[in-house]
Amino acid sequence: MDLGTIAGIIVGLIFVFAGIMAGGSVITYLNLESILIVIGGTISATFVAYPLAKVLEAMKITSKAFSKEKVEPRDIIHSINGLANTARKEGLLALEEAAEGVEDEFLQKGVMLIVDGTDPELVRNLLETELAFVEERHKEGQGILETMGSLAPAFGMIGTLIGLINMLRTLDDPSTIGPSMAVALITTFYGSLLANLLFIPLANKLKLRSKEEILRKEIMVEGLLSIQAGENPRIIEEKLKAFLPPKIRKELQQKEEGVEA
Amino acid sequence: MDLGTIAGIIVGLIFVFAGIMAGGSVITYLNLESILIVIGGTISATFVAYPLAKVLEAMKITSKAFSKEKVEPRDIIHSINGLANTARKEGLLALEEAAEGVEDEFLQKGVMLIVDGTDPELVRNLLETELAFVEERHKEGQGILETMGSLAPAFGMIGTLIGLINMLRTLDDPSTIGPSMAVALITTFYGSLLANLLFIPLANKLKLRSKEEILRKEIMVEGLLSIQAGENPRIIEEKLKAFLPPKIRKELQQKEEGVEA
Amino acid sequence: MDLGTIAGIIVGLIFVFAGIMAGGSVITYLNLESILIVIGGTISATFVAYPLAKVLEAMKITSKAFSKEKVEPRDIIHSINGLANTARKEGLLALEEAAEGVEDEFLQKGVMLIVDGTDPELVRNLLETELAFVEERHKEGQGILETMGSLAPAFGMIGTLIGLINMLRTLDDPSTIGPSMAVALITTFYGSLLANLLFIPLANKLKLRSKEEILRKEIMVEGLLSIQAGENPRIIEEKLKAFLPPKIRKELQQKEEGVEA
Amino acid sequence: MDLGTIAGIIVGLIFVFAGIMAGGSVITYLNLESILIVIGGTISATFVAYPLAKVLEAMKITSKAFSKEKVEPRDIIHSINGLANTARKEGLLALEEAAEGVEDEFLQKGVMLIVDGTDPELVRNLLETELAFVEERHKEGQGILETMGSLAPAFGMIGTLIGLINMLRTLDDPSTIGPSMAVALITTFYGSLLANLLFIPLANKLKLRSKEEILRKEIMVEGLLSIQAGENPRIIEEKLKAFLPPKIRKELQQKEEGVEA
Amino acid sequence: MDLGTIAGIIVGLIFVFAGIMAGGSVITYLNLESILIVIGGTISATFVAYPLAKVLEAMKITSKAFSKEKVEPRDIIHSINGLANTARKEGLLALEEAAEGVEDEFLQKGVMLIVDGTDPELVRNLLETELAFVEERHKEGQGILETMGSLAPAFGMIGTLIGLINMLRTLDDPSTIGPSMAVALITTFYGSLLANLLFIPLANKLKLRSKEEILRKEIMVEGLLSIQAGENPRIIEEKLKAFLPPKIRKELQQKEEGVEA
Repeated sequence: MDLGTIAGIIVGLIFVFAGIMAGGSVITYLNLESILIVIGGTISATFVAYPLAKVLEAMKITSKAFSKEKVEPRDIIHSINGLANTARKEGLLALEEAAEGVEDEFLQKGVMLIVDGTDPELVRNLLETELAFVEERHKEGQGILETMGSLAPAFGMIGTLIGLINMLRTLDDPSTIGPSMAVALITTFYGSLLANLLFIPLANKLKLRSKEEILRKEIMVEGLLSIQAGENPRIIEEKLKAFLPPKIRKELQQKEEGVEA
Repeated sequence: MDLGTIAGIIVGLIFVFAGIMAGGSVITYLNLESILIVIGGTISATFVAYPLAKVLEAMKITSKAFSKEKVEPRDIIHSINGLANTARKEGLLALEEAAEGVEDEFLQKGVMLIVDGTDPELVRNLLETELAFVEERHKEGQGILETMGSLAPAFGMIGTLIGLINMLRTLDDPSTIGPSMAVALITTFYGSLLANLLFIPLANKLKLRSKEEILRKEIMVEGLLSIQAGENPRIIEEKLKAFLPPKIRKELQQKEEGVEA
Repeated sequence: MDLGTIAGIIVGLIFVFAGIMAGGSVITYLNLESILIVIGGTISATFVAYPLAKVLEAMKITSKAFSKEKVEPRDIIHSINGLANTARKEGLLALEEAAEGVEDEFLQKGVMLIVDGTDPELVRNLLETELAFVEERHKEGQGILETMGSLAPAFGMIGTLIGLINMLRTLDDPSTIGPSMAVALITTFYGSLLANLLFIPLANKLKLRSKEEILRKEIMVEGLLSIQAGENPRIIEEKLKAFLPPKIRKELQQKEEGVEA
Repeated sequence: MDLGTIAGIIVGLIFVFAGIMAGGSVITYLNLESILIVIGGTISATFVAYPLAKVLEAMKITSKAFSKEKVEPRDIIHSINGLANTARKEGLLALEEAAEGVEDEFLQKGVMLIVDGTDPELVRNLLETELAFVEERHKEGQGILETMGSLAPAFGMIGTLIGLINMLRTLDDPSTIGPSMAVALITTFYGSLLANLLFIPLANKLKLRSKEEILRKEIMVEGLLSIQAGENPRIIEEKLKAFLPPKIRKELQQKEEGVEA
Repeated sequence: MDLGTIAGIIVGLIFVFAGIMAGGSVITYLNLESILIVIGGTISATFVAYPLAKVLEAMKITSKAFSKEKVEPRDIIHSINGLANTARKEGLLALEEAAEGVEDEFLQKGVMLIVDGTDPELVRNLLETELAFVEERHKEGQGILETMGSLAPAFGMIGTLIGLINMLRTLDDPSTIGPSMAVALITTFYGSLLANLLFIPLANKLKLRSKEEILRKEIMVEGLLSIQAGENPRIIEEKLKAFLPPKIRKELQQKEEGVEA
């Protein structure tokens, strides 16, 4: 579980509810109509904007923003180093067995391509095409969240307009003006909260997560091609480390030197 | 029929109407003036912004967002594979007859160019120019919808201003303030609803549809040039599959293996 | 006259006036102060943003959005074909006389360069530089209209603020609040209407018109260089047709075939 | 003095003041607090956004938007032509004396580089680096004005919020509501006016001025390198004229022909 | 300490507080709920949008906007000149000792790479990768501040909506409307002030600071590679000066000439 995302949403809601309870009660804010218009309207318009298959895929991708990324780039370099050592000592064919132990599907597929003796140019091509599709899919996921982030406040305003129009039509009893207006404003409140605490920040986290995943996959592509080219495992490791930010690289080095010492 | 687009609009309207009927009646919202200002104003300004021919073309293109795309990329690859086999076995001239059975106009035209013995460079040129024009036309369609998506709320606000000004001029009877203001706000309601449930989401779906159509046509161009070059149908198929997303590619492969087994 | 632009503006105004007259009278909307602040302010700020010469040029260019484009690309291809035939039969020098009959100034200038025996590289260079200046000038025209489109609502709001401030200062007689507020809102109404029915849509139409003119001039450059290179008129025609959208190209072809048959 | 910029600001203010005086008095609008919050806040935030040195430089650059550009591109071509003639007749070293008569600092510096026998590649490098720095500095000047153009309305709104909050806290005497609200709105009025009549249009004029200056300097670089290469003054002039818009080029040509005739 | 940033914020606050105290008291503005919703909500949503590690890093980077940049580009050129002289006279290995006196970590690391006899191509590669990571990190820092700059007004509005809804629900005592509304508006006031005096200007200053730091590091990379190539210290200095703006370059030259004289 990614604590940041979940804690951010929960703590944000706590702050908002604290503000609500300081001067009123939460029950006032549970307005079924408002929820229907904002959430129903946003989701309906999203389905006008995107085909069903893409929306479902986006939901799967969004769940990533909530799940903790377990595979660190350094672990991938470690895995590739292991594969490179196996290939060096026992030949490329020995990778077939090793591939079974590889958890990452993309890396496993790449290893199988090497074992099958696929032409290096084709290996690069296939893996990079797949990378491009992964990137495209992530971008669509972000796009859907950003679309929802702009639709939610719009439907919030539409709901508030409906509330105001309904109230203004029947101005018989002045004492009902206040409560009716309060209800009308709740829809705008929902739209703003959904957009600013959920959709827009999630779209941003997805962008960052996508960048990390692309980096991990680029390391894999580079590593796989180097293994296929029969490069020295030590040199492969150095090459892949260039993909890491200097800070992590330095940590790795210190750890290594510790081991060597 | 593309269920997503139509269902999205209908379900969105149901949510909005549910919100309306919870506190009022739909009849209040049927205001001829408001409809005239928002829809009339938006369409008039669209005609100032775009020539008539482009607006009509955009309407035709928009209808695509409502129609289900029947031709899947995998079917195109299948068609091209059939053509490649015919060309291989019976020669390029035999494609003339085969071309008659091809449904897609773009593909048919490409086949006829090959049959006519057009220079490969010229074939690519002609097809890619046509592709560029298709893309351009799609972009204009989106552009018109986006323009309408920004004009509708603007004319909604203009209508509300008119309503407010008319009301404020004659503040004799306080009891009419409410209903007059309600009527004034209906125009803003219309503008927002049209923009956020119709124009903006439709522009987005059109963009996605355009991308799919361009992909299909790119597969055709690549396939046609490979057929003309006399490449092996099996190799052509592999080449074209690289255009498909990995997921669909895997499905195809499994199906094939099932057939082979 | 370009009917689309003028009809769009007039019909749009009719819709807006219909809305006004449904609940009030047009006379209320004729407020000299509002007109002075919105139009005067917008024009003044435009002169701060752009030098006088550019604003005048923009007005000339904008008038194009109102005038019907008479020269179709197919007519240009026809003209060039005629010139190519003359050059073929009677030599490049014979073009001097033919050039006098050419209406388009740009084309005429190009023909004179050829007649003068200018180096082909220099001809291309001179014509393309001129093309770049035309494009630049069109972009500035659009830029001025877009600037006005964002200034008009801003000065509309400034005018409304002035109206509100003046009204609020003297709240002696409650019966004047409504009419004063109505007058204040008229300025916002003017700003919005000018921006959304006039400036922004006109900027867009200018962009499309500019694209068409650039296309026409590109066809001329390509044609002139082909004539100078002594290419076959028939081949020149085919080459230039590649600049046309497929639909128009097909129409031309059918017409031709009709003539030939 | 650049009449356009100054006249635009003054005439714009006249329109606004005419609107003010039609329904109130200018004195109402002289509110010290409002001026302090809008101008003080905008300038303070600008200093948070930009270092002091850059803000001062931007002010110097902005003053250009008020000053009339005296050096026309045609005059520069004329100057360079004179230098080219001197270099041709009396040798490059004779330029040292001629350089003293050159007003433009950039051109003078370039001439001195040539006189010093600097390598042509290095001359181009040095001058183009300087050009890049000039462009960078102009962009920062525009950036500061644009930042102020978005800060001014924001602080206008902040001031209005303060005014409203102060008023709402002490609603004892209903007769003070109007005047207090009027005062609150004055801050928004200031912010809008500053942004739309001053900052945003000035940023735009600066952009156009920068483009003109860069063009002039590019002509100088090209001319200087041609002089150093010992090209014919006549040919240099023709080459530099290609930088001019066709309209001015034609005027020059007609004048020349008049002289020759 | 960077006076501009701190003074800008403090002076901005003074102007705002002066405005507040002119018509009310600062105590009214100390509303715990408002502060909780705006600051709490903004920070929570920022944690949804960015992982914890990046937010912490952004805070470290932001502190740079408050700290005075002590190392001027001219000092770096001076340092590199010293290193170049040492390398020239005593050989590359003598740099090891000299490196200890180098304050900048990046420069020191580069010197050590040279001392270790790393291949020049690899030195450039390693340093430029590190430069790219520094740039990336700065961009993320700006991105976080910009995100906060758009979240703060959004949560300000959410807080105001809560205040209005709570107030409207209980319209029993008209005398409480004013004060309740005042409290509601305070949240919007906080959001606007934080965004426009703090987050958005700070993001901008960070961008400028980042540009300066990248320039300094680029000078170092160029200098280190020149030292490694054994170039003449005098020539290295000239080369590096091309990175400086002309104004500073001129100052340096005058100082030098003064020294020489």
